[in-house]
Amino acid sequence: MPRHLIQPLDFTTEEFEDLFRLADDILLNPVKYGSVCNGKVLASLFFEPSTRTRLSFETAMLRLGGQVVGFADAKVSSTSKGESLQDTLRTVENYADIAAMRHPKEGAALLASKAMTNMPIINAGDGGHQHPTQTLTDLMTIRHYKKRFNNLTIGLCGDLKFGRTIHSLVRAMNRYENVKFVFISPDELKMPRQFKEELSEDSYRETSNLSSAIEELDILYMSRVQRERFVSEEEYLRLKDFFVLDEEKMSLAKEDMIVLHPLPRVNEIATEIDKDERAVYFEQAKYGMYIRMALIMFLLDIEVEK
Amino acid sequence: MPRHLIQPLDFTTEEFEDLFRLADDILLNPVKYGSVCNGKVLASLFFEPSTRTRLSFETAMLRLGGQVVGFADAKVSSTSKGESLQDTLRTVENYADIAAMRHPKEGAALLASKAMTNMPIINAGDGGHQHPTQTLTDLMTIRHYKKRFNNLTIGLCGDLKFGRTIHSLVRAMNRYENVKFVFISPDELKMPRQFKEELSEDSYRETSNLSSAIEELDILYMSRVQRERFVSEEEYLRLKDFFVLDEEKMSLAKEDMIVLHPLPRVNEIATEIDKDERAVYFEQAKYGMYIRMALIMFLLDIEVEK
Amino acid sequence: MPRHLIQPLDFTTEEFEDLFRLADDILLNPVKYGSVCNGKVLASLFFEPSTRTRLSFETAMLRLGGQVVGFADAKVSSTSKGESLQDTLRTVENYADIAAMRHPKEGAALLASKAMTNMPIINAGDGGHQHPTQTLTDLMTIRHYKKRFNNLTIGLCGDLKFGRTIHSLVRAMNRYENVKFVFISPDELKMPRQFKEELSEDSYRETSNLSSAIEELDILYMSRVQRERFVSEEEYLRLKDFFVLDEEKMSLAKEDMIVLHPLPRVNEIATEIDKDERAVYFEQAKYGMYIRMALIMFLLDIEVEK
Repeated sequence: MPRHLIQPLDFTTEEFEDLFRLADDILLNPVKYGSVCNGKVLASLFFEPSTRTRLSFETAMLRLGGQVVGFADAKVSSTSKGESLQDTLRTVENYADIAAMRHPKEGAALLASKAMTNMPIINAGDGGHQHPTQTLTDLMTIRHYKKRFNNLTIGLCGDLKFGRTIHSLVRAMNRYENVKFVFISPDELKMPRQFKEELSEDSYRETSNLSSAIEELDILYMSRVQRERFVSEEEYLRLKDFFVLDEEKMSLAKEDMIVLHPLPRVNEIATEIDKDERAVYFEQAKYGMYIRMALIMFLLDIEVEK
Repeated sequence: MPRHLIQPLDFTTEEFEDLFRLADDILLNPVKYGSVCNGKVLASLFFEPSTRTRLSFETAMLRLGGQVVGFADAKVSSTSKGESLQDTLRTVENYADIAAMRHPKEGAALLASKAMTNMPIINAGDGGHQHPTQTLTDLMTIRHYKKRFNNLTIGLCGDLKFGRTIHSLVRAMNRYENVKFVFISPDELKMPRQFKEELSEDSYRETSNLSSAIEELDILYMSRVQRERFVSEEEYLRLKDFFVLDEEKMSLAKEDMIVLHPLPRVNEIATEIDKDERAVYFEQAKYGMYIRMALIMFLLDIEVEK
Repeated sequence: MPRHLIQPLDFTTEEFEDLFRLADDILLNPVKYGSVCNGKVLASLFFEPSTRTRLSFETAMLRLGGQVVGFADAKVSSTSKGESLQDTLRTVENYADIAAMRHPKEGAALLASKAMTNMPIINAGDGGHQHPTQTLTDLMTIRHYKKRFNNLTIGLCGDLKFGRTIHSLVRAMNRYENVKFVFISPDELKMPRQFKEELSEDSYRETSNLSSAIEELDILYMSRVQRERFVSEEEYLRLKDFFVLDEEKMSLAKEDMIVLHPLPRVNEIATEIDKDERAVYFEQAKYGMYIRMALIMFLLDIEVEK
């Protein structure tokens, strides 16, 4: 039976560490890995569009010397003829060696993976549910800039209620030692209780004031605050600027704090910040590609001499 | 002038046999064929979506070391600007070495092929008309499991009236010796007279009872029975279970009968059958890819040492 | 900072000449260039569909041994989530080595190029504005058949008012010596004054009579006359045949005149002309691919020994 990546914590921290080391090595020696996937095909199955994630997976496979087939949109997939998702995937299993799958329904990737006899499936997002390679991307970026996962204070700002990437990141970071979380959000968008209950009480605090919280942070993870989440337009207008990162707030932060964002950004980070060396959200996309390269190699059981 | 594949019987049985042998060899020695199409480009021109067929062609070309360009949907093709199909194909001929083309209009592939000066065209389905690589796929699967095309009894079940893959398969199988056909369908969906007239009278019989017919079959080719084909909902409900393959009916079949289906399946084969070794419809997709690899090599005149 | 191609005249005539020579060499020795882009990735970013241009770019990259990722349609791009074009491109810069970008808004390519730190951008058309690789294609075709850019009389026929490829071609040809322009159009669609003011007065003349103008031409560049450009249906019907190229008009042309068209053609060139050796509009598409191969190599700074 093949191994899959369906949920962010499907892998142990040791396995994560192996992936990060491999991704680092690929980043430093791309030529060495430029043909390790020769003859292999990735099925890129996007039942809903997500250009950023799709391009990241596809480029990852191509840069390993593999090839890609697939679709970018459900409208061109044949589930429209009433075929079950499992049947579609069992057919694809005859063509491809590995699949990255995005689907609007929660649990779709898990369901599909159960029908596989030899093709590993990577969950590239299932509804508002899980998006494990985003978590790997976030961790890879943190590791690159901070050289550690322990002893860090990480602020998570914006929509903590619905932000699945934030939920997954908190769970993943909580597996390391002495990590402190600062949850920064309007009252309407606070971190749900179930996630807080998994943390020890002295490891997190909650606030609605980014300006006052920023100075203690090693990492600031920004996310979008959507207008439609608020009870009234008045409330939205009153609160939104508190959660926008601008030069003034950045001036209060540590010299070596880093700012992450899963992208796309709308206006929660002022573009004036883009040139600040601490703003690493575009570089984050680059680390996302390298960790996906490592992941594909891992699931296909491809090794090269170190 | 290039050679094309527009209709299932464009090739002789000898040419078919060459293709099957080549496909077998590719299946056994994929590495030997992994770069025979280096430098060649397949144009994958899907004027209507058909993910299954498209992925099969594209993977076939990629696994031969070739490359692929194209579109999955008419909306992104430029015929929307009023360009004729022949002009579009003559332009593509400047980019690609071979084309697989799907089009909603009957005769589109034939029309396009006549404008070509050097690019072979493979008809990947034109309306409800012809779909020759499905026929090749079906034959390849039969040959793999039965090791012969002669002396076989093949049951064709479901919509025999509109099912183009069934019509083509019957014609193709009728070129071999001592093949018996059992046409299993509701009255509304019987095999059209013109196809029966091509067969000798003692080579086929018609029935509406799958359960009683199944025990004599070497091959059962299932197809979908669509609700909208029936005169009334009442009639549909009365008849549909007769044409659903389930464990009970399978228990009456020979130990070495095989079940084929062009897919997608909706509910005409119970999923409980999927694990039965005689159910080879997912493997069928795999043979479809290998026969397309052989076909591409054949039309591009690429040979390797045996 | 990377070099981009945003407008047709971004390059000098000397740089153009280098590109044409390189394209010629690729055309003659494709194997020599078949892997010069190994390990490189082209982002093919079509925010509006343009199959012809997209396939040309993608095949160009693949035939150099590179790879391609991207999208064919804005609907599958993530700008729909409110992301700025610059953010999208900065993300893509992390995946790809070079981008070909088509966008419905004028100035989009220029705007995007300003955000780049290392990825060259090729403008593959921005609104009705600029389409520099079409101009390169036109020039490459002229150079192939005429062996020179000087001392030529070029007729431009059809919609001279809105035809951006015509405007760009006139500007580009005007950089060479002793080029005469004959502008052939209905009154409604005459060459705009701003373009004529860039030309010396004795280098062009205007007419609405293709038949009488054709005999003096070395090159005839045809374009589409759209019904909706005319003040009345009556006027359209009265005039349209004057601007249709048919056998009768061709019989008046020089033996070595060549006919170009950016395609798609609708009915402004009768298909009876297609077999005339002077009709080179389909070959034009081939030269378009080779000049794009040269352009990609140039912008990626890839050289091979001559």
